[in-house]
Amino acid sequence: MIKPSLPKGFRDHLPAEGHKREFILSAIQDAFHRYGFQKLETPLFESMKTLTEKYGEEGDQLLFKVLRSGDFLQKANQEALQAGDSRALAHSICENGLRYDLTVPLARVVVQHQSDIQFPFRRYQIGPVFRADRPQKGRYRQFTQCDADIVGSSSWVGDAEVLKLYAEVFESLGLKVAIRVNHRKLMQGMLQHLSLSEQSTAVLGALDKMDKIGEKGVYKALIGLGITENVIDEFMAWVKQSDFTIVHNEAMQEGRDRLEKIIKVLGDAVQFDASLARGLDYYTGMVVEVVSSELEFGSIGGGGRYDELTKVFGGQNLPGVGISFGLDRIVDVMDALERWPNESDGKPLILFVHFDEPGMAKGWEYVQKLRCMGIPAELYPDIAKAKKQLKYADQRGFTYVAMLGDDELSSNTIMVKFLDQGSQRSMTFDELLTALNTES
Amino acid sequence: MIKPSLPKGFRDHLPAEGHKREFILSAIQDAFHRYGFQKLETPLFESMKTLTEKYGEEGDQLLFKVLRSGDFLQKANQEALQAGDSRALAHSICENGLRYDLTVPLARVVVQHQSDIQFPFRRYQIGPVFRADRPQKGRYRQFTQCDADIVGSSSWVGDAEVLKLYAEVFESLGLKVAIRVNHRKLMQGMLQHLSLSEQSTAVLGALDKMDKIGEKGVYKALIGLGITENVIDEFMAWVKQSDFTIVHNEAMQEGRDRLEKIIKVLGDAVQFDASLARGLDYYTGMVVEVVSSELEFGSIGGGGRYDELTKVFGGQNLPGVGISFGLDRIVDVMDALERWPNESDGKPLILFVHFDEPGMAKGWEYVQKLRCMGIPAELYPDIAKAKKQLKYADQRGFTYVAMLGDDELSSNTIMVKFLDQGSQRSMTFDELLTALNTES
Repeated sequence: MIKPSLPKGFRDHLPAEGHKREFILSAIQDAFHRYGFQKLETPLFESMKTLTEKYGEEGDQLLFKVLRSGDFLQKANQEALQAGDSRALAHSICENGLRYDLTVPLARVVVQHQSDIQFPFRRYQIGPVFRADRPQKGRYRQFTQCDADIVGSSSWVGDAEVLKLYAEVFESLGLKVAIRVNHRKLMQGMLQHLSLSEQSTAVLGALDKMDKIGEKGVYKALIGLGITENVIDEFMAWVKQSDFTIVHNEAMQEGRDRLEKIIKVLGDAVQFDASLARGLDYYTGMVVEVVSSELEFGSIGGGGRYDELTKVFGGQNLPGVGISFGLDRIVDVMDALERWPNESDGKPLILFVHFDEPGMAKGWEYVQKLRCMGIPAELYPDIAKAKKQLKYADQRGFTYVAMLGDDELSSNTIMVKFLDQGSQRSMTFDELLTALNTES
Repeated sequence: MIKPSLPKGFRDHLPAEGHKREFILSAIQDAFHRYGFQKLETPLFESMKTLTEKYGEEGDQLLFKVLRSGDFLQKANQEALQAGDSRALAHSICENGLRYDLTVPLARVVVQHQSDIQFPFRRYQIGPVFRADRPQKGRYRQFTQCDADIVGSSSWVGDAEVLKLYAEVFESLGLKVAIRVNHRKLMQGMLQHLSLSEQSTAVLGALDKMDKIGEKGVYKALIGLGITENVIDEFMAWVKQSDFTIVHNEAMQEGRDRLEKIIKVLGDAVQFDASLARGLDYYTGMVVEVVSSELEFGSIGGGGRYDELTKVFGGQNLPGVGISFGLDRIVDVMDALERWPNESDGKPLILFVHFDEPGMAKGWEYVQKLRCMGIPAELYPDIAKAKKQLKYADQRGFTYVAMLGDDELSSNTIMVKFLDQGSQRSMTFDELLTALNTES
């Protein structure tokens, strides 16, 4: 006997939970379609060489690797094996890993299938991604991302479109959010101004942890990088202010011009946030992060412009911009705020209940007829006590129960119980059909 | 530079392919809903102890294992490492694997979440599964299964329902199929009659390969098992006949009674096939396999009754029955038969084309207005030559192009090209709205 359990950091979604997820997914998909995004599917596996060095060192460590099938030891790096070097050994016994996000697979796809794609390529993709992170509240090892990206255009229109899409979807879900934007060029220019360009990855990495380690933590981390207090003070003053029009050099000018165009069309829908760094290495322009305005929770969406992402896959470089919705975290926020609409959750309307083989056979006929007409219907599959069958109807939330006892079979009628009204009425199948078509 | 490529046996689905997949998925999902199945989602990962010993020895070898994260060598089986025993080592450096089908995860779920589920539990699940098989035509390492199962009832109604569902879906897809059924009890009784019970796994394994190795191959395999020619002749005569009413013992009687009930309500929709073995170890009753009647291709669906599957996870045993649609293979068959319906593939209706910043800004306004009204619309995101923008409209299959040149901007009109008709007409935004609402 094996005690059934799931690996840590993974979850099942039973039907009740599944309906909540569907509610959010359909709001997102509807917006994707209206905005002209087309569906792409990529596999869960990518080769390790596609995955590594795209997400920074920390990201590389969070990649799930898949063991080669067959006798993997034959191809193992013998030196690494002797030295007990897990990391080096892993690369020789694992060719493939599980995707870490949907953006790097997209970059691979646009280069690999370049001749079959019309650019600008507007694609959306919805699916699970995997990170070997320490599981905790709101952080799972498998979670669902819903991404929309425009590849092959560097226009401000793309930036504005994905931000507008964010605003629309969260509004339609009834969630108040802050859509925070910054521009990598603005940040890079500021670091250049402070003569910190060479340490920019480390500085941005520290800043990106602000939520976790607080302002003091960031300060300490910057001290640890050997930066003087004066410079840190100026940097911290910059990240805390809200004026993106102050510029000191060309890079900052470029960021400012771009943000101005975006703010012009989006207005109050987005907020400039000079402290927004975003962990992923591949962003080059506008970056965005969405948080709830009603609840401290962390980001429920994020994205940005990546104008050099396809470069590593060779050939012509293609600029891109994209956003991602974190489905699992949006569910958590909707749960915490109890923001679910009060709706039917797609459960079948009617259950046929019976007490013997002839009743079950008659029920089978009726159910098949209803299904053929497009009406969801169910037949209790076993011969069981009425109490048990009615309990099932109640728990599943049926609104009608059609009972087929001896009287009904001999008179060719159906006793219909209206569970929501507590009443019941004998009727013919045609009368039942009329009732179902009127009510539904 | 990395040449972009996918691991062998994996595929991307670009939008054109995605629409085909959606067509099939929606036919399947629609039937699942009408039949009262509710959606379940389980993670892609399962612990190795959940996965192993459920699919037979061959299945175990096809499981993809995921390397432990961090320093996996610390927990490695040192003996296996010294001995170079890949298989034993794998179990110590991999805790989890990728799901091989959706049935074993279902069995885990019903035991693990027993108190939150209403039985009989009618669930459907659609998602990718993974097998480390040698890739070949029609066989992928990741493929999508669409499963419907009824757990917690051993009634013939469940068997009949899933078979009827098969018949309906393939009919709605316009595919002619043979739905072949057999019963494990009938087969077991026959082996018992031939005194082959002790070798039943090996015999069924050989029979299951009939498609690949032919009748002669099966004969040879059975000789290899030490079975006498007389017995083999009787066995082969049995698997080639079509009369399930001949019985020699109690087990066969049980299989016959069940098949009779099924055939009674389904009639010609299913065919008895005494040779049908099905590879998976967990089936105990009715087994089913669907093949195209128009094309030699192999199975495009399969399933059966598994009345002891939850036993290994402990507690009360729950009987179940289920079927699976092989989405990827159905796509292949529809492709080969060119059986796709001629429909719109959900592409956006209208593209706004422009020639300078003011035109783009005006286009942005119009596009946002249309999207807010639920009409899909696109703005070409870059300032580009008319030829380039129109080429994009043509390749993507737009029906309308709205052009915003100097004349249009100054007169507050839109020049609308009807790409399907080859005509164009100047109109106001309100007139365009009327046209779009009439045509769509």
